[in-house]
Amino acid sequence: VLVLAPHNGLLQEQLSCDLADVEARFAAELLSDLPCVNSLVKHIERYRGKMLRPTLVLVSAMASLAERGLANVPTPAGGDEVAGGAQQWQPTREAHRVVATVVEMVHMATLVHDDILDDAQMRRRGQTVNDLSGNETAVMLGDYLISHAYHLCTSLGRPQISRMIADATNVVCEGELLQLANRGNWQLDEQTYFEIIGRKTASLCGTCCKLAAVLNQDGDQHQGEQEDTTAQALYDYGQKLGVAFQIVDDVLDLTGNEQTVGKTLGRDLEKSKLTLPLIHYLRSSDAVGRDSLLALLDTARVAAAPSPLSSDQIRELCDRLGQVDSVHYAQQWAAKLIDQAKAAIVDNLPASPAQTLLLDMADAVLTREF
Amino acid sequence: VLVLAPHNGLLQEQLSCDLADVEARFAAELLSDLPCVNSLVKHIERYRGKMLRPTLVLVSAMASLAERGLANVPTPAGGDEVAGGAQQWQPTREAHRVVATVVEMVHMATLVHDDILDDAQMRRRGQTVNDLSGNETAVMLGDYLISHAYHLCTSLGRPQISRMIADATNVVCEGELLQLANRGNWQLDEQTYFEIIGRKTASLCGTCCKLAAVLNQDGDQHQGEQEDTTAQALYDYGQKLGVAFQIVDDVLDLTGNEQTVGKTLGRDLEKSKLTLPLIHYLRSSDAVGRDSLLALLDTARVAAAPSPLSSDQIRELCDRLGQVDSVHYAQQWAAKLIDQAKAAIVDNLPASPAQTLLLDMADAVLTREF
Repeated sequence: VLVLAPHNGLLQEQLSCDLADVEARFAAELLSDLPCVNSLVKHIERYRGKMLRPTLVLVSAMASLAERGLANVPTPAGGDEVAGGAQQWQPTREAHRVVATVVEMVHMATLVHDDILDDAQMRRRGQTVNDLSGNETAVMLGDYLISHAYHLCTSLGRPQISRMIADATNVVCEGELLQLANRGNWQLDEQTYFEIIGRKTASLCGTCCKLAAVLNQDGDQHQGEQEDTTAQALYDYGQKLGVAFQIVDDVLDLTGNEQTVGKTLGRDLEKSKLTLPLIHYLRSSDAVGRDSLLALLDTARVAAAPSPLSSDQIRELCDRLGQVDSVHYAQQWAAKLIDQAKAAIVDNLPASPAQTLLLDMADAVLTREF
Repeated sequence: VLVLAPHNGLLQEQLSCDLADVEARFAAELLSDLPCVNSLVKHIERYRGKMLRPTLVLVSAMASLAERGLANVPTPAGGDEVAGGAQQWQPTREAHRVVATVVEMVHMATLVHDDILDDAQMRRRGQTVNDLSGNETAVMLGDYLISHAYHLCTSLGRPQISRMIADATNVVCEGELLQLANRGNWQLDEQTYFEIIGRKTASLCGTCCKLAAVLNQDGDQHQGEQEDTTAQALYDYGQKLGVAFQIVDDVLDLTGNEQTVGKTLGRDLEKSKLTLPLIHYLRSSDAVGRDSLLALLDTARVAAAPSPLSSDQIRELCDRLGQVDSVHYAQQWAAKLIDQAKAAIVDNLPASPAQTLLLDMADAVLTREF
């Protein structure tokens, strides 16, 4: 799905196999004896998109093994051979695929619950669960997903991994609660905005990459300095990429094409969430511009869910944001963060095909249109 | 909180100390660096009621140790001494208190999300989170609680325990989804009703009791037959008690005093959830009675959340249910299940003060008014 240079066909092929395996594990874990549950799960499987988070786990795993002079040997049968020295805990691709499935499940749960928060009707060109079956079912389906994510994670028998995931979801929820507490706060500053998206989006991305490195380490023993550096560098890469990803998401909510993006847009405005372009505009424009933007935001708030902002109103807003380069400002921030993400792994991990793929993935965040 | 005979002051005192410790651990685990999160957590701590689930863990632990010829020795300082033979994994009261905190957190999460599903305004005589801060915040606060429950559980370093809890929460969510799928289904039969409440309420209660026994066992080794029997008997006790508890809850929703119960009542009717007395009535009354009940249920559904059923309407319904003894029928079911719950531990565990306390707790389920 990501637009990548075909520099390593073998690695790409391996990744495709692994992602197909993640999809199969996802379905198997969620299978219920209740038909009403299965039909809901079937519905949300249609939301599956870029699979960014599982991909981060799988490619980081390969980049991290390369760092240790090991390499997952891709085999046509999708086996679990690992070339390299003997280790107390043998890193297998299976463990990475399990964790990749866990993070996809966590992410899917946040999508289902996010759509309740946003009163969204559309996701990946399909109806959202809240729109299709009501908020109540969406609450419980999200809970079902998160419960199974933890359930699946225990199958690894490594509490440290479960703890890292729980640490990340703790922080994700804090970010969402901080964002909710700041709805309608037109004084929201840049620092708080970064605090919000750092928690609600970037912490899970950072954790995905770090988990891959930790899974390659021996069981519970304390690791060497090099392992710590690798895990930290991968975390930094994922974290910065996650912040950039969310900035681009927020820009697309304003400037995107609803058919291309595939979900309801303009929701941040309607839900009175200030994002980076708007924060910049309110700070940079003159009093007249500021007052009229605030008037529009108040209109959106009053109009609320049943009557979304008209496309005219969205277009008017984008024109305005363009006048003071506020969208460009946000894009520049994203570009700067992507540079930092790339630097983290270029500086701390050896060159490898997997590293190149991570660098390409980072670049793709800036050019994505959905 | 439960009305119990003062047959063992020492055990009661120990239980009070342990529950105070659970409250402290609950607060410590949920502490955030974000003030907006802490004020929400502070609000829901007021919901704390009977602490049934942590009590089930703690008393089952004592009953299970008694079975093995061991006994937690209560010490004034609340230490963790255990009398008895040497074991590979030393059962400590601390591990049980951690698990007791985890299940209380899971339960609190379900309350917060349940209140969204029920559009409830009142809980323990206080405002619900959804009423106070909106559904969105209630969704995320519930997620925060469940995430921290799993996080805290990993501190035990025993994946088997985390897995048992995740197994239970998987089933709880299935029960809730099955109930939602059957809203407005006036053909709901008794079997499906028991399926719903067995999953949404009883599975967690059964797991609480079983967890206590498993925590008393050695790490990961396979256990002897006696240990399996004890764990299964405690599960059966908790499971039957949980089903009875939910039946009583459903009866109280119809016949309870809102001030005594402390939460919004009549919600099952308004949310088109058939419960045992109503299922019995629809099955047992004549066509005229059935048709007029269905008409009332349809009225309640149309009236929806903003205009709850009037107390006159609720009273009229209870009169009707009384005429065919439908409330009595449900109470008899609860009494039968409590007998079964008690038999499970009387038949399979040796007599001990802790066992007596479990028997008293079971009886208290039938006489509770809140």
